[in-house]
Amino acid sequence: MKINHQNYHTIWLHPDDRRIVQIIDQRYIPFQLSIRDLKTCEDAFWAIREMVVRGAPLIGVTGAYGIYLAAVSFHDQKSFKSDLQKAAEYLKTARPTAVNLANVIDEMMQSLKGINNLEELQKAALAKAEEFKQKEIDYCRKIGEFGARLIREIAEKKKGEPVNILTHCNAGWLACIDWGTATAPIYVAQEMGIPLHVWVDETRPRNQGARLTAFELGQQGIPHTVIPDNTGGHLMQHGKVDLCLVGSDRTTYTGDVANKIGTYLKALAAYDNGVPFYAALPSTTFDWSMTDGVKEIPIEEREAEEVKMMEGVIDGEIKKVLIMPEESPVVNYGFDVTPARLVTGIITERGICQANKESILKLFPERLNTLALK
Amino acid sequence: MKINHQNYHTIWLHPDDRRIVQIIDQRYIPFQLSIRDLKTCEDAFWAIREMVVRGAPLIGVTGAYGIYLAAVSFHDQKSFKSDLQKAAEYLKTARPTAVNLANVIDEMMQSLKGINNLEELQKAALAKAEEFKQKEIDYCRKIGEFGARLIREIAEKKKGEPVNILTHCNAGWLACIDWGTATAPIYVAQEMGIPLHVWVDETRPRNQGARLTAFELGQQGIPHTVIPDNTGGHLMQHGKVDLCLVGSDRTTYTGDVANKIGTYLKALAAYDNGVPFYAALPSTTFDWSMTDGVKEIPIEEREAEEVKMMEGVIDGEIKKVLIMPEESPVVNYGFDVTPARLVTGIITERGICQANKESILKLFPERLNTLALK
Repeated sequence: MKINHQNYHTIWLHPDDRRIVQIIDQRYIPFQLSIRDLKTCEDAFWAIREMVVRGAPLIGVTGAYGIYLAAVSFHDQKSFKSDLQKAAEYLKTARPTAVNLANVIDEMMQSLKGINNLEELQKAALAKAEEFKQKEIDYCRKIGEFGARLIREIAEKKKGEPVNILTHCNAGWLACIDWGTATAPIYVAQEMGIPLHVWVDETRPRNQGARLTAFELGQQGIPHTVIPDNTGGHLMQHGKVDLCLVGSDRTTYTGDVANKIGTYLKALAAYDNGVPFYAALPSTTFDWSMTDGVKEIPIEEREAEEVKMMEGVIDGEIKKVLIMPEESPVVNYGFDVTPARLVTGIITERGICQANKESILKLFPERLNTLALK
Repeated sequence: MKINHQNYHTIWLHPDDRRIVQIIDQRYIPFQLSIRDLKTCEDAFWAIREMVVRGAPLIGVTGAYGIYLAAVSFHDQKSFKSDLQKAAEYLKTARPTAVNLANVIDEMMQSLKGINNLEELQKAALAKAEEFKQKEIDYCRKIGEFGARLIREIAEKKKGEPVNILTHCNAGWLACIDWGTATAPIYVAQEMGIPLHVWVDETRPRNQGARLTAFELGQQGIPHTVIPDNTGGHLMQHGKVDLCLVGSDRTTYTGDVANKIGTYLKALAAYDNGVPFYAALPSTTFDWSMTDGVKEIPIEEREAEEVKMMEGVIDGEIKKVLIMPEESPVVNYGFDVTPARLVTGIITERGICQANKESILKLFPERLNTLALK
């Protein structure tokens, strides 16, 4: 998608040096566009851990490139297999809630395990990382196409009035490679000429909505309004939201949706006001091992500083200010889980299903066997 | 209550000059304690409008002192009656949602209308303002005593484990004169030796929770934890909240509760998880003219800057940083309305009632006649 009228992905191989991976440093958006070089597996770990890259799909692809960067750094034909295994385990610990990261790394390791030559491994690791990247782009585009049909249906009922969509956090192209998950239907609907307007939840404490989603939508020319996270319920009570569209960091095959903290509150308000609530996610986000998301999905606790300090621009510089009593304690949970009963549907690259086991497995019948084995 | 171990009210007559009213400037808490002099009716309007004072009960009392300050400024025996009427109308427009302000001013004007001598008016206006102030203190203390019984009941079930209370915004003593509304039961429970812990919603965009409630509780030695507004639902899903306790800016006599934006979302989560949700309010907060709060209560829209800029401390100075793309639009609603069906009960100075017309009128039977007249 576009930044300053130029097309970007969120991650790519350095055009002049194939041993380097480049990323957009998302910590400084919207205030500054910085490109970072990742040269080692540790760089990839750092980028994931420090949220230089964020969003489940992008985290997964960055993990895949991390495996490639690890492979590139090896010189010993004997030990590279066990070293790669160590790198894989290490990378998986960078963020615990996003299941994509572990899934992608496991799949990558599976595909590389038969390779006994280091040079071959390096080539195969790169090919596999690029394949994951392309797959995420294709999946997001598909999600966009399926989701845009929903938006079109609402638009037809509204007869030319803009469709009002509420989104939480950033499940945009910056969280993916291109298109985004929750934003993909919005971008495809824009292509189709459907009039729309997006309510962007600020998304405290890291403000990914106010910073990233607002930036993305602005760059793409999509009408939007930033709102405090507290506002969505009031808007829904007054008929100002036609559709809630969020991403997910992990969704159980029973339809429980883990997403940025606060998503559950919006789902409750949507349910209370009869507003359709959809989660848009590539199938890599499904967790095929869990049945009760609220009880089972691990929820990451992050540093108090993210709540206590607020980053912004003052006198042209990016700085942090203390926004509460320094001595007051804080907790900072990264995610919450929206129970399936509040989710109208799930938009995937294969189509839209309901948030329950039967409907999800109808779209992914090949999983039936795996589940039966347990 | 206490600031730096000294007892304060939020508003008082200047000890050396009875023509001046003093207030705590709440815009700089918790970073700085400033006392301001109000010398004119316009000063009182400014203090209310700019949220130098805030909270429904304190706004009402400041309005009453505003009438007194207006009276003090008059010199013309002939025109003071119409001038006072103008001052009253003017003061009422300072904040539209808080019904206390209009109620207090109307009651004050009613009590002053028979007075035909300016000096007498000035004396009577002061007496009436002081009476309103004392009444708010007494009401808050009563709310505290009734509410503390609820906390004690929960404490008995928890057998020595701290009672976890979630609150939104600041319905503390800083919003009143002393004790607070939602915090009064907490302070009285503390006096009673009940172990408790308070989850303090940050309360974007103005952060009254993180700034004022956290400050109050800290100064009073009450264990508390500040959380982003997005967090409460997750905490309730995991059994970490025993009671939600909020204030109100206007409550219909049918039990719909207008309070700081985001309250409705917490009420939904409380309902979904079987957590009792109480609003604590002096009876001056009741609106006896409305039956449908969601449809009828006017919701104040505030400036975009409150969302776009964040105030905090950097290098020892209070400054504002821009926290989102400058060009993205914003909406900033100050309040939302929690429908009565989500409210477990209302704690008033006369006792606790259910959030419905019958139960509320049982506590305030004198209103039956007024309502019957309509």
